[in-house]
Amino acid sequence: MKKLYVTFEEVHKLVKKIAEDIINDNWEPDCIVGIAAGGFMPARILRNFINKDIYVVGLKRYTDENEAHAVPIKIQWIDGIENKLKGKKILLVDEIDDTRITLSYCLNELLKSKPSEIRIAVLHQKAKNKKAKFPDKIKKIYQGSIVPDVWIKYPWDALDIDEHNKMCNSKDLS
Amino acid sequence: MKKLYVTFEEVHKLVKKIAEDIINDNWEPDCIVGIAAGGFMPARILRNFINKDIYVVGLKRYTDENEAHAVPIKIQWIDGIENKLKGKKILLVDEIDDTRITLSYCLNELLKSKPSEIRIAVLHQKAKNKKAKFPDKIKKIYQGSIVPDVWIKYPWDALDIDEHNKMCNSKDLS
Repeated sequence: MKKLYVTFEEVHKLVKKIAEDIINDNWEPDCIVGIAAGGFMPARILRNFINKDIYVVGLKRYTDENEAHAVPIKIQWIDGIENKLKGKKILLVDEIDDTRITLSYCLNELLKSKPSEIRIAVLHQKAKNKKAKFPDKIKKIYQGSIVPDVWIKYPWDALDIDEHNKMCNSKDLS
Repeated sequence: MKKLYVTFEEVHKLVKKIAEDIINDNWEPDCIVGIAAGGFMPARILRNFINKDIYVVGLKRYTDENEAHAVPIKIQWIDGIENKLKGKKILLVDEIDDTRITLSYCLNELLKSKPSEIRIAVLHQKAKNKKAKFPDKIKKIYQGSIVPDVWIKYPWDALDIDEHNKMCNSKDLS
């Protein structure tokens, strides 16, 4: 599979674009929910522009042997979730909408707490057939960039950030 | 107060140094606990080198009007914390050891779940008089860099990452 290397600076700019889109919609969430760990950095940068408390949900889609669980496993959930989410407008943040399995699972779980609305924000939207559907209640997804079905190499995954950045300089898919 | 601007790449390298220090100590935590939201990025990058589940605790030290709370406010805590932490070796991750108030509060709270050990990792250690002490059970802190009492400008706080990086190029304190 072709790879697309992304710099930290590009991530920052994608988040800023998403924040501007949200603000231009005159929509203001009550809180941000970040999906660990891919959503950590986008959620944190978003808070510069949309200053709301961040809650984290930890989900694991793959085992340590890189096999997919049938449904994502909850590593951490939100304590006292009813009080925090009921009737609230939530912005759910992750790095990518790939197969849509994790996002859909997470949305269905969060909807059990009866928020008034959930919108989604992802850095990258993969243009591909999805393996799951968003719940009907989800009406809006903010996406930094739409990309083909490539392997996105995020900077926080790098073992050597200088080597990673060298790969980014070649903007063609490698 | 003088400011020290830090790039994303410098953050990545500080985390890598911390990971190497931990591995060189032959110490392997059972899990990583990141303090939101400063600990998000260090915790995520650490997982490249020390592949353990990340839990998040959210603490707020300041009000939206930038006044300090007497004790930090818990935004989010770990659900089912006893099962997750009891008897376990924990690596607690934040971006900085500044006044030590948030870290000490967090450590005391986590110790209630009776982990076998907690070690700390921070990107920056401020060489200054601290306003709180670590609990006696804490024996080890890994620190990426020791800095004077300056205002550290982290890249995830930037409103414009290009402007931020320009400030980083001047390595003198500005």
